[in-house]
Amino acid sequence: MKERGDIMKEKVEPRTLPGFMELLPQDQIMFNKMVDTIRSVYEEFGFLPLDTPTIELSEVLLAKAGGETEKQIYRFFKGDTDLSLRFDLTVPLARYVAGHYNDLVFPFKRYQISKVFRGERPQKGRFREFYQCDIDIIGNDTLDLIYDAEIPSVIYYVFQKLNLGKFTIRMNNRKILNGFFESLGLLSNASDILRVIDKIDKIGREAVQEELVSLGLDENRISKILSFLTITGTNADKIAALKGLGIDCETFQVGLQELETVIESLRSFQVDENYFQIDLTIARGLDYYTGTVYETILDEYPKLGSICSGGRYENLADYYTEEHLPGVGISIGLTRLFSQLKEIGLVGENKNTISQVLIVPMDKSNNGYVLETASILRNNGIKTDVYYQDKGMKQKMKYADRLGIPYVLVIGENEVKESKVAFKDMISGNQELITVEEVIERLTNS
Amino acid sequence: MKERGDIMKEKVEPRTLPGFMELLPQDQIMFNKMVDTIRSVYEEFGFLPLDTPTIELSEVLLAKAGGETEKQIYRFFKGDTDLSLRFDLTVPLARYVAGHYNDLVFPFKRYQISKVFRGERPQKGRFREFYQCDIDIIGNDTLDLIYDAEIPSVIYYVFQKLNLGKFTIRMNNRKILNGFFESLGLLSNASDILRVIDKIDKIGREAVQEELVSLGLDENRISKILSFLTITGTNADKIAALKGLGIDCETFQVGLQELETVIESLRSFQVDENYFQIDLTIARGLDYYTGTVYETILDEYPKLGSICSGGRYENLADYYTEEHLPGVGISIGLTRLFSQLKEIGLVGENKNTISQVLIVPMDKSNNGYVLETASILRNNGIKTDVYYQDKGMKQKMKYADRLGIPYVLVIGENEVKESKVAFKDMISGNQELITVEEVIERLTNS
Repeated sequence: MKERGDIMKEKVEPRTLPGFMELLPQDQIMFNKMVDTIRSVYEEFGFLPLDTPTIELSEVLLAKAGGETEKQIYRFFKGDTDLSLRFDLTVPLARYVAGHYNDLVFPFKRYQISKVFRGERPQKGRFREFYQCDIDIIGNDTLDLIYDAEIPSVIYYVFQKLNLGKFTIRMNNRKILNGFFESLGLLSNASDILRVIDKIDKIGREAVQEELVSLGLDENRISKILSFLTITGTNADKIAALKGLGIDCETFQVGLQELETVIESLRSFQVDENYFQIDLTIARGLDYYTGTVYETILDEYPKLGSICSGGRYENLADYYTEEHLPGVGISIGLTRLFSQLKEIGLVGENKNTISQVLIVPMDKSNNGYVLETASILRNNGIKTDVYYQDKGMKQKMKYADRLGIPYVLVIGENEVKESKVAFKDMISGNQELITVEEVIERLTNS
Repeated sequence: MKERGDIMKEKVEPRTLPGFMELLPQDQIMFNKMVDTIRSVYEEFGFLPLDTPTIELSEVLLAKAGGETEKQIYRFFKGDTDLSLRFDLTVPLARYVAGHYNDLVFPFKRYQISKVFRGERPQKGRFREFYQCDIDIIGNDTLDLIYDAEIPSVIYYVFQKLNLGKFTIRMNNRKILNGFFESLGLLSNASDILRVIDKIDKIGREAVQEELVSLGLDENRISKILSFLTITGTNADKIAALKGLGIDCETFQVGLQELETVIESLRSFQVDENYFQIDLTIARGLDYYTGTVYETILDEYPKLGSICSGGRYENLADYYTEEHLPGVGISIGLTRLFSQLKEIGLVGENKNTISQVLIVPMDKSNNGYVLETASILRNNGIKTDVYYQDKGMKQKMKYADRLGIPYVLVIGENEVKESKVAFKDMISGNQELITVEEVIERLTNS
């Protein structure tokens, strides 16, 4: 028998779903700063913004999908309409370019920073709703190889500005891999072998060897594959070694030539050679990519895996259009990256604040002066909060302290009389009586 | 019998759903500028960013919903889990504040600019997926009345900066309406009457009169209601007239006192009196608001209806928590507003561009110089695109022209020899040979 339950209103527990990130304001401020940085570099390179719908017709969105992807999709009916939430930003891009083909200017350089949705089994570090920050460059029929160098150079500036320590952009070319397997007479097994190779960072060389045996490969070829994968040295050394293999296969030679050109162009893009590296073990998404492929790792945190991946594809939108649309692109999975950075303490240690200053009126009698002061500060580009609640001074100061607002202006009768404000530095605790102009000067130069 | 169909791959038509806005890049740039402006003013006033999940548990999201709202919701199962897409930003805010109560600093000032989803029947100007740009201020137990003036003053600065022409923020107080009906002995009919009054702008005074008759009101009271609703004059006149009614009802008097205080505070906030107006016909959402209510109209386009509405509510989150959380907030429905502004030609007439300059190499031989020039410009904060495709000069210029990029730098052998660039003004057609430093100077001052 209910005793209180039938009197008290039943409350619903205000919870979110597992796998859906929701941040407290100070972390949200930090997250938004990262988004702003990424966006600003993307725009610096002339990428145009796009914002496709979250919900699409399943028939359209899933034209190409299948297997694992399809299982993860949030798909449902509204009335008679079969709908799906986007699971990446590439399929909507393909649909967009095909649909707006005549209105777009090629090469079409676009960025999109949006949430995507995948109903995966929730596990640590996996999100069901997460931000992707994508750039792609789509050519109309052809796309110059130098764009394969522009993409990682954009990423180089992004991660420089994000200030997450030393990172390496690892690069390969799918044609080199395919050509190499072709030369071994293993072209038909190539995608199985690539799938195994893709795991070498995670499972190690020996496990890869075993899996290749179980694919039915003989010892000789496995040994060739493994020594190919572990070619070492500088980028120039690796190019030289690949040339030295003397593989008589056009696909291989084209891939090698492409890789060499991309590497050379990256130098022209003024990308520090310490930040990019040929890595022959990188295969990426099995069917999609056809040329250059990229991964990015934080040197001090290789266990995070690739934080930014992509590559060149032969044809973006063949499910929607007869037009031939080659492209190259890359994606930062920001929600996952942010959550990992928080965990290892690379972000979120400091108090992040929106307001640069909080105005604290002693009481309501001076609201005119208080609000005028706030307006002057805001007109000078200073983010200004005002505490209007009728509380004690201690409570008012606590508001600034908990929000991490670095300066407080106290305004009472005395300040109004003198046409000044009591300017308090929340870190040092110092307080001075100064003019609003002096406040602006200090905050603008701080 | 298929003749070609079985040879040609079947293409899926790359279409979007009706009621889902998708913009071409130049409009998207303009849309994003509006978002940036709104966000920057929100932050100038110290509002903290929030980004709640798009998908929530139906049990949580719909704790309070019912009727029309519930029918519009995108609701579906993933496995055994009953999920819904958010249909506004207020319910997620309530859930957030209740769930993170101990981690938040009150008054909690937050903004959220996110898409919300409503499966309405599609009709002109109605969207099923649209952006809301919300600010709310939530008090812990109490919230000072001056925050009711801060909200419209933020909106005043937002619309000043959006530069959409003269606008008026119309204000009322629900307690005045409720108290007035109470004084007429019509308190139990209040919500029906308010629903009718809310339509006065749309259907006119006479239709309202008829509907009031059909609610069973006598002529005397209808006449009193209509003369009340049409009190004219300045804000001061209206306050005086309301005082002069001599209504002996506490609710009415409290509401009147509140409205007067809010109006006075708005003057302190330096909001131009021409931009806010008491409007006794405004009632807003029937059950939710309890005090001050707002609507905003563009003076020259009253037919757009309210482009920004909100008000004071007594308790934000009573479905989730025992805490008493009064608040005040307002929302801009940006997707609809943008679509309307486009239609009347107030936005989107000009070519909007991301890149300030396009570098056009004559051929590939000077890529080093080209890329160095691009890097220098970008390091000086100039958004710079480079055209790398191997096409004729006409095609290269067309790229800049169609994208609306105002300046082109042509770089060929001669430019490299002289360590200069050919700087072309795309509007005047003028072309000069100048140094990169001169380019920076011109673009930084332009």
